[in-house]
Amino acid sequence: MHAPTIKELRQAAARIRPYAHRTPVLTCSGINRMCDAEIFFKCENLQKAGAFKIRGATNAVFCLEKKHALQGVATHSSGNHGAALALAATWRGIKASVVMPENAPTVKQHAVTEYGAEIIFCKPTLKAREESLAHVVARTGATFIHPYNDYRVISGQGTAGMELCEDISDMDVVITPIGGGGLLSGTALAVSALSPNTQIIGAEPEKADDAYRSFHAGRIIPADNPSTIADGLRTSLGTLTFPIITKHVQEILTVSEENIIAAMRLIWERMKILVEPSAAVPLGALLTRTCQFSSKRIGIILSGGNVDLDSLPWIDKRG
Amino acid sequence: MHAPTIKELRQAAARIRPYAHRTPVLTCSGINRMCDAEIFFKCENLQKAGAFKIRGATNAVFCLEKKHALQGVATHSSGNHGAALALAATWRGIKASVVMPENAPTVKQHAVTEYGAEIIFCKPTLKAREESLAHVVARTGATFIHPYNDYRVISGQGTAGMELCEDISDMDVVITPIGGGGLLSGTALAVSALSPNTQIIGAEPEKADDAYRSFHAGRIIPADNPSTIADGLRTSLGTLTFPIITKHVQEILTVSEENIIAAMRLIWERMKILVEPSAAVPLGALLTRTCQFSSKRIGIILSGGNVDLDSLPWIDKRG
Repeated sequence: MHAPTIKELRQAAARIRPYAHRTPVLTCSGINRMCDAEIFFKCENLQKAGAFKIRGATNAVFCLEKKHALQGVATHSSGNHGAALALAATWRGIKASVVMPENAPTVKQHAVTEYGAEIIFCKPTLKAREESLAHVVARTGATFIHPYNDYRVISGQGTAGMELCEDISDMDVVITPIGGGGLLSGTALAVSALSPNTQIIGAEPEKADDAYRSFHAGRIIPADNPSTIADGLRTSLGTLTFPIITKHVQEILTVSEENIIAAMRLIWERMKILVEPSAAVPLGALLTRTCQFSSKRIGIILSGGNVDLDSLPWIDKRG
Repeated sequence: MHAPTIKELRQAAARIRPYAHRTPVLTCSGINRMCDAEIFFKCENLQKAGAFKIRGATNAVFCLEKKHALQGVATHSSGNHGAALALAATWRGIKASVVMPENAPTVKQHAVTEYGAEIIFCKPTLKAREESLAHVVARTGATFIHPYNDYRVISGQGTAGMELCEDISDMDVVITPIGGGGLLSGTALAVSALSPNTQIIGAEPEKADDAYRSFHAGRIIPADNPSTIADGLRTSLGTLTFPIITKHVQEILTVSEENIIAAMRLIWERMKILVEPSAAVPLGALLTRTCQFSSKRIGIILSGGNVDLDSLPWIDKRG
């Protein structure tokens, strides 16, 4: 298996077109002035199920041959991929099982069950998660769809960057958040093919800087139980995403927790859209590097908008 | 002076085109399912300065003859119109003065000063407000631009409904919030001309039901210091807006505070966009009348997205 080419990305785009939104690209003159740059926000927070994850999950589910599809799909996820896979499975009319740690937030559990998937709870350890998943797969014959270390998923995630390149010309840079690397590697494949003069940059929390360290070490250094507010970016790079990133990405930028929250709040206040902390990381990176990016045309993928509205980082709650 | 016709609305649209956004129309399958209807949300919360108000203010400012414009514009407002007029004035390169009660929230004051307008503080009474405004006008020769009781403002506000009719065909109903009636009367002029089979409905808080009572009494009954969370809808109908509403509007629906907050939260959670309480009132009206609106195609104007993120109605703050 080779890494996906632009041909596979185009096939993914055709496959998911009936299901996923073509999300809008928004701009904000106030934020442009603050950054002294022209920023184009690809709004995957307005995507179905509230995140870009539906692209990869839908592509993977509709790639399955019928006989395999009928046995269902399974994954482990405490976040957006679980809900996305659940929704994609309903579109194909098949069953989805999602292994989640028993301490996963209620709001994340609801998102999965609302789309009709079965949750299998496990202890919150890597070992318990893998055992539970293996058990589900053995019991049902379901196909495991990894959250990011899967070429079908990577191709699907790349369709957001394809659309961005189709809508906005002459970008100097495209920046995405990086967790497991599905979005960044998919974006890198799309942008390097469609807009070869555009730089590709990943942004991650300082407190989960495994991608930064891996990028500079030339090998995958796993994240060690990071505690960042950007809950979508706590995962480690995968064996399929890392080589694509090494080949096409120019730089990994890290961002403090304080700047992630400031950027998140700025997007809410100025753009009137909800983004989750992970989605604000690229803007957080820009805000502290205005010299580096001055006068540039910058694409940012706002990866998702799933937040718990009862608990916002800038509000000190009673009790 | 006669009420604006569709010709004047088209002129307003041409006048504001270089300045205001053509805002997107979004849909949400989850909310459609809950309401058993097809709802088209015209997103004026994503408009410049965060509300539809920029349409009317910009039209009014650019309607002025040069010699009058040079003397500036003035208004009284503790909300979105003040910020909108301030921004429209900067676009024309003229001065704006905004009379605000001295207890106006800091966030609203910032919005006005950020756009370079002068704030004149007054005691929080109607009398003090009118005296302060008269004094400013006498001192500067500025033209008073009323927040809603002005045909130039009404024509400008009507351009949102025009765009909605251009984008979405065959709507059964269009619902807007109603405070002073600028948005509802402008929308009524647009929709009755462009889509004559579409019903036009206003929605307001139960706690500020002066439009409902006026509509049924056939005369303007002023609001008596209402205490609703929908701060944009506390004003009373105007002598210019009321006749247009009487002529074109089918019904005024009222909504409890609880349902305003529930609808606001639903839009945030499901659509991932910020709306202010006033903007959520039409959806609040729908949620409790699903029988009346079942299977209909419904346009809703989300009037604005300016909220204080430090104080959300569903979060109980410390202290």
